Amino acid sequence: MQIAHTISEMKTLRSKCTGPVSFVPTMGYLHDGHLELVRRAKKDNPFAVVSIFVNPTQFAPNEDFKTYPRDIDRDLAMLETVKTDIVFIPSPEEMYPEGCNTWVDVEGITATLEGRSRPKHFRGVTTVCNKLFNIVEADSTYFGQKDAQQALVIQKMVADLNMNLKIIVVPTVREKDGLAMSSRNTYLTAEERPSAPVLYKSLQLASGMYEKGERDARKIVAAMTQLISTVPAAKIDYICVSDINTLQDVDTIKGKVVISMAVKLGKPRLIDNIILG
Amino acid sequence: MQIAHTISEMKTLRSKCTGPVSFVPTMGYLHDGHLELVRRAKKDNPFAVVSIFVNPTQFAPNEDFKTYPRDIDRDLAMLETVKTDIVFIPSPEEMYPEGCNTWVDVEGITATLEGRSRPKHFRGVTTVCNKLFNIVEADSTYFGQKDAQQALVIQKMVADLNMNLKIIVVPTVREKDGLAMSSRNTYLTAEERPSAPVLYKSLQLASGMYEKGERDARKIVAAMTQLISTVPAAKIDYICVSDINTLQDVDTIKGKVVISMAVKLGKPRLIDNIILG
Repeated sequence: MQIAHTISEMKTLRSKCTGPVSFVPTMGYLHDGHLELVRRAKKDNPFAVVSIFVNPTQFAPNEDFKTYPRDIDRDLAMLETVKTDIVFIPSPEEMYPEGCNTWVDVEGITATLEGRSRPKHFRGVTTVCNKLFNIVEADSTYFGQKDAQQALVIQKMVADLNMNLKIIVVPTVREKDGLAMSSRNTYLTAEERPSAPVLYKSLQLASGMYEKGERDARKIVAAMTQLISTVPAAKIDYICVSDINTLQDVDTIKGKVVISMAVKLGKPRLIDNIILG
Repeated sequence: MQIAHTISEMKTLRSKCTGPVSFVPTMGYLHDGHLELVRRAKKDNPFAVVSIFVNPTQFAPNEDFKTYPRDIDRDLAMLETVKTDIVFIPSPEEMYPEGCNTWVDVEGITATLEGRSRPKHFRGVTTVCNKLFNIVEADSTYFGQKDAQQALVIQKMVADLNMNLKIIVVPTVREKDGLAMSSRNTYLTAEERPSAPVLYKSLQLASGMYEKGERDARKIVAAMTQLISTVPAAKIDYICVSDINTLQDVDTIKGKVVISMAVKLGKPRLIDNIILG
């Protein structure tokens, strides 16, 4: 496993790869969800590059950029176990030198859900991914289904800008009790942690209602809201039933939809989703 | 010379190029300024790709998108003479399929000069160039110095987004009387045409003042304004002395500057510039 700290080092290592290269961008503080992405990348390709970069431009001033958990040594040890070939760990100054002032903006599908709660978040995500895709020059990239909107936004950017990159979306990896793995789960206190699976339980409830024939989005959201309200500390940011392509709210479920949610549980704001239809 | 009308055809032709590929994006209605770009491209590279695409997203609703001069047969005949290898002529629907909604925005240097007079113009330019660069996958691209700000904006985009592409800026090609070649010169009437070199004459006047030691930008602009005012039909949009990197106005010329101007002469709005220092 080789490590690059600068763009120039990364390009040198990349130029030595003699077959298809896959890429997994991360913000570090890895968990098994990340490792699953690397396992899939290595299964499909001879080379896997992983980046670790807590991207300042996707955090709002009031968000947790400074306190976002970081542990590079632990991350590197984990990446060794899944046979990562190259780890790219740039500094913020390397990625955003002074005067760097170009932004990639996917309009439309970024205005809802996470984008509504976190304005400019996706502009930061698409810009840094665009840069990383150009630096790594991978043939394919792997994203987790947990960040459903992020995966859709990246797919849209790559399609709209005719980027030469295949995107593979990998199912969410969960703890045994159903909690979607996330670096921010580390913020949960011992008291909060047992309640956290309520997000997944509410998605399972929705799935069950759908399977029994319910197509009224409001009824599904109401049942999910009621279930989550049994956890007094949980504060719902949003629960939405959205068209899988446009991410616009639907009233009646006809085609494929994503039910997604953000819930603040103590310090962390947890997100989760399922696709139905 | 081979012609591609679709992105897929372009990619197929590109994949058959066995050495460095150069790229000249154009809006067609070619003149010798464009051909000079292709000559330079072919001098430096075994393969040259030229695109012809009147890009709707860089025109404002009140601008000349619909009436912009077009003559593909004439363009193709001219491109043959300079040994162009591939001509890419996509339709607007091919470049912007329904729902295409991703934009590349270079902030800062797009707020002045042409960007001030033509809001959103550069967003259209950078987005279409980003797309074309990804489609053509060239090793280098050639831009004319006549559109000085455009060349700087594209260089900034490529640097900021870490795109893998070398940009070469080629000196402005002029008519014998000094008028910078432009597809929009065709809008000049027989009465207006003899006055059009006044733009270049004013730049030469500025250059002469600079060489004699003048460093006060206001004095240079005042002299240029006075000269252009001798043409009653000429309406000055702007004359600016700007820092070559930031494109911010300078009062006193110290380092390298670009003196650029836009002047409406009858129907067309003509632009020109020189670099001093």
